[in-house]
Amino acid sequence: MKQLTVMDKGFLLAESREVPMHVGGVALYTVPEGVDTAEFLHGMADNLRDATEFLPPFGDRLKTGRLGLAGPTYWEPDPSLDLDYHIRHSALPQPGRYRELFTLVSRLHATLLDRNRPLWEMHLIEGLPNRQFAAYTKTHHAAVDGARSVHIARSMLSADPDHRLPDSPLSLDSWKRYRAGLKRGGAGAPSDGQLRNVVEALKASYDSGAQLYGVAKRITRAWTGDDNLLLPFLKVPTSSLNTSVDGARRFVAQSWPFDRIKTVAKAFDGTFNDAVLAMCGGALRTYLQNHAELPEESLKAMVPVSVRAEGDVDSSNAVAAINADLGTNIQDPSRRFAAIRESTLAGKSLYADLSPGEAQLFSLLLQTPGMLLMPLGLISRLPPFNTVISNVPGIRETMYWNGARLDGSYPASIVMDGVAMNITLSTYDQNVDFGIIACRRSMPQVQRIIDYMEDALAELEDAAGLAKPAQKTKAQPKRKTGAAPKRKAKAKAKAKAKAKVKPKSKAKAKAKTKAKTKAKAKTKAKPKTKAKPKTKAKAASKTAVRKKPKKR
Amino acid sequence: MKQLTVMDKGFLLAESREVPMHVGGVALYTVPEGVDTAEFLHGMADNLRDATEFLPPFGDRLKTGRLGLAGPTYWEPDPSLDLDYHIRHSALPQPGRYRELFTLVSRLHATLLDRNRPLWEMHLIEGLPNRQFAAYTKTHHAAVDGARSVHIARSMLSADPDHRLPDSPLSLDSWKRYRAGLKRGGAGAPSDGQLRNVVEALKASYDSGAQLYGVAKRITRAWTGDDNLLLPFLKVPTSSLNTSVDGARRFVAQSWPFDRIKTVAKAFDGTFNDAVLAMCGGALRTYLQNHAELPEESLKAMVPVSVRAEGDVDSSNAVAAINADLGTNIQDPSRRFAAIRESTLAGKSLYADLSPGEAQLFSLLLQTPGMLLMPLGLISRLPPFNTVISNVPGIRETMYWNGARLDGSYPASIVMDGVAMNITLSTYDQNVDFGIIACRRSMPQVQRIIDYMEDALAELEDAAGLAKPAQKTKAQPKRKTGAAPKRKAKAKAKAKAKAKVKPKSKAKAKAKTKAKTKAKAKTKAKPKTKAKPKTKAKAASKTAVRKKPKKR
Repeated sequence: MKQLTVMDKGFLLAESREVPMHVGGVALYTVPEGVDTAEFLHGMADNLRDATEFLPPFGDRLKTGRLGLAGPTYWEPDPSLDLDYHIRHSALPQPGRYRELFTLVSRLHATLLDRNRPLWEMHLIEGLPNRQFAAYTKTHHAAVDGARSVHIARSMLSADPDHRLPDSPLSLDSWKRYRAGLKRGGAGAPSDGQLRNVVEALKASYDSGAQLYGVAKRITRAWTGDDNLLLPFLKVPTSSLNTSVDGARRFVAQSWPFDRIKTVAKAFDGTFNDAVLAMCGGALRTYLQNHAELPEESLKAMVPVSVRAEGDVDSSNAVAAINADLGTNIQDPSRRFAAIRESTLAGKSLYADLSPGEAQLFSLLLQTPGMLLMPLGLISRLPPFNTVISNVPGIRETMYWNGARLDGSYPASIVMDGVAMNITLSTYDQNVDFGIIACRRSMPQVQRIIDYMEDALAELEDAAGLAKPAQKTKAQPKRKTGAAPKRKAKAKAKAKAKAKVKPKSKAKAKAKTKAKTKAKAKTKAKPKTKAKPKTKAKAASKTAVRKKPKKR
Repeated sequence: MKQLTVMDKGFLLAESREVPMHVGGVALYTVPEGVDTAEFLHGMADNLRDATEFLPPFGDRLKTGRLGLAGPTYWEPDPSLDLDYHIRHSALPQPGRYRELFTLVSRLHATLLDRNRPLWEMHLIEGLPNRQFAAYTKTHHAAVDGARSVHIARSMLSADPDHRLPDSPLSLDSWKRYRAGLKRGGAGAPSDGQLRNVVEALKASYDSGAQLYGVAKRITRAWTGDDNLLLPFLKVPTSSLNTSVDGARRFVAQSWPFDRIKTVAKAFDGTFNDAVLAMCGGALRTYLQNHAELPEESLKAMVPVSVRAEGDVDSSNAVAAINADLGTNIQDPSRRFAAIRESTLAGKSLYADLSPGEAQLFSLLLQTPGMLLMPLGLISRLPPFNTVISNVPGIRETMYWNGARLDGSYPASIVMDGVAMNITLSTYDQNVDFGIIACRRSMPQVQRIIDYMEDALAELEDAAGLAKPAQKTKAQPKRKTGAAPKRKAKAKAKAKAKAKVKPKSKAKAKAKTKAKTKAKAKTKAKPKTKAKPKTKAKAASKTAVRKKPKKR
């Protein structure tokens, strides 16, 4: 029986109904031609179940003594491991757009894992058009860290469409094969190894609770400004992102071509991460303006950055985290980019004053979606940033899972009191896949952030004088596989006359809606069969009319 | 702001991740001809949302002070009521049988409600064949008691297929109309009124915590045998039904013709409830035999019975509860029925020694699915019964919800430590609809109880020398609407060549399965496309072979 580390137990102790401490994500796949999707999914489920022994702790459950989590806590094999519980089939209601998928993922991500069983669930989701299916995964942060989950995902995938997994990717045998493969080396393997080694070294350090506390205390004092390492960007404004959260979530996702973002970064002499921050900062500015709550000060984001090689975009090295300015107080896109770049450079300089070991601990502490700072009492009430924007290392070529082509992989992380939204991105193939998770009450219209990010990117392209690939990105799917969920779904909805979309009824529009419904009810009251698909243009103009953006 | 009663707050205090304190159920409907199911469901959702003010507390959330639930707790209007959160669309994966429906309901019933919002959810579920859809409802027991939820269900339904609801059945206007209708009287109305008045009087009594505690203490002492009202059937055996529970659930449901059960009751000179207990007792005997854990002593069930008029089968009067013997230790069906009848008569005689007020309090205490006895410290560790079998009053004619025909209504109640299974039945139209909810770990094969109940009923019919309507009940849907979920689904699966069902992989069969999967994986590893639909005959014979029932 393996004992849980102080850190892993922290995720269990910090968990509540309002703040579940699991991480996950949704991946889109296309099944091979000539195969029935539902049958294929049953085969996938069989393969996932196919293990004599699972990679710990996928077959283990928590074991505590008389003191519960206050006492020593171990992993023990689940004596009645029930794989049908963990590996699930789900389906989308009609018309099965990405909108329905995101709604389902939002719900699945909001429920707590059963603590009496191994702390993971996997949902194979059917009902998408065009031979696509989705896989939503959810694992407790006490059970796997980010590095391990990335490696498990990698061990499932192959660049060869004809490759088939001999047993469950969660099996111990599969893990051993994967590790052996890494040792044999080969192109690309070293960076995988680096990532794992770094994180494993950090975990080892954390096993000594005293050391953890001492270093963390020093670092957070520095970071929050109680020390001589005072930083110029520490004042954090408040917004609807920084309220207490409840248990419901909203999840949205979208892909952009990697080259588009990288080109913007080059044009402004910044890093890929700087360009991502500029997109997010621009989007948040629009969002907050439209909600009439744009603060005078810029919003801050906790961001993992590369500290090894300046300008290196390979995110598998990005093991340090900084508190970045998002430039939300700056209207001009070029000046906003410059402010972001300045803040990330300043953030990186902080690491120069720390020993490599401290920098690593620092980064792990802050990269942790669960944010143990609050439960450990290291930060009083609210963290010194408004949101978390983090980058998960991905694979830069088309991959397959048992022959199903991976079209995109969208992370879903953790939100908590004071950080009601988390943006996590993953580079995959030619794309950057963004997954946004938010508290449903604090950010009810978080899906708009996706549109605003596209607007912000286009604005940056304009400002840099770049040829704006407007047609390519707005009207067409961004890659052959159609990894641009939202737009594709919209095109589909229009093409398919049957799929009549009804705009969500709003509280404000209720009186009118009600009158209409009543009239109908009296005649025949057949549920509404007509509806106006809300075009993007309409939605945008509506927003503009209701709350005219104040230019600064 | 209305303050919560001691009892309502008890449901919140007693709730845990392992024991959610919500009640609910799933209803099956058939949409009218010529209407698209998905569109119809969107219309239903619109109608549910259509309210200017909701019946309290459907628009209210909990409000506590600095002390949390330890201090005064109120209902306050939710300032940002988000109806899309409460009213949800879901879908079943292929082949969309009742099996997939039960799996989904099991999952939905296992997750906690969000305490920051009004404590209810409603799921409209598509993906069933034959124009059917399902509605799963889940409401916290602190928000509605059993009587109110029955009335809300009734106010939604009409005997007229052309009737349409002018506004949400959860609206205050709808509730006022319904109450006015009850006052105007008419056939059947008085019993509704009685039920509500009784329960409201009881709730008023409970508002005085001291009175609650005093009466409850006296009653439970009597019931558990610490008093002079010692009963002959108090020794409760242990079984897999009486373990601590975890958070996952299994839900199954089935309908039987009311007349079949009533005929058996008459043949043995017992009540309808006695016959239901004999069915359940017989099924539990078979289940425990097949798990090699049949106790020497009979299992006990907490059962609501009629105490007003002997032999009255109108369950809306069944406001008292007794601890009934289930005769699981008796092989002969006639003798088992006699033992059950004797115990229910003895249970009713207990009420003779109590004042009417006490009897009512007693019954409410025990009928409560949440069972406040444990949290209030009235019962030490385990309740003095093995399961709960309760009867929800239903409507004895075909009803419609906005034109959709109600085919069956299956309750899903609460399980807790010591009571890992709850059977709740509802009489509707010509049928009795049973909903069984169980802890997934304690009773992994609870779905078999349904088959064993049919076997037990047939056995009773044999013993009574009744003409066994075998063809009618076994091979055909039990009513024109097909409210017999399981059998119909089976017939469908066979008919539809596409819907190839794979028997669940069992841990024991793993080695074999694995070898097969691996061999396949090497050739082409296309997910298994062939499978043997597990016929009922096979399943039954297998069970018999593995564990031959010991006759006593």
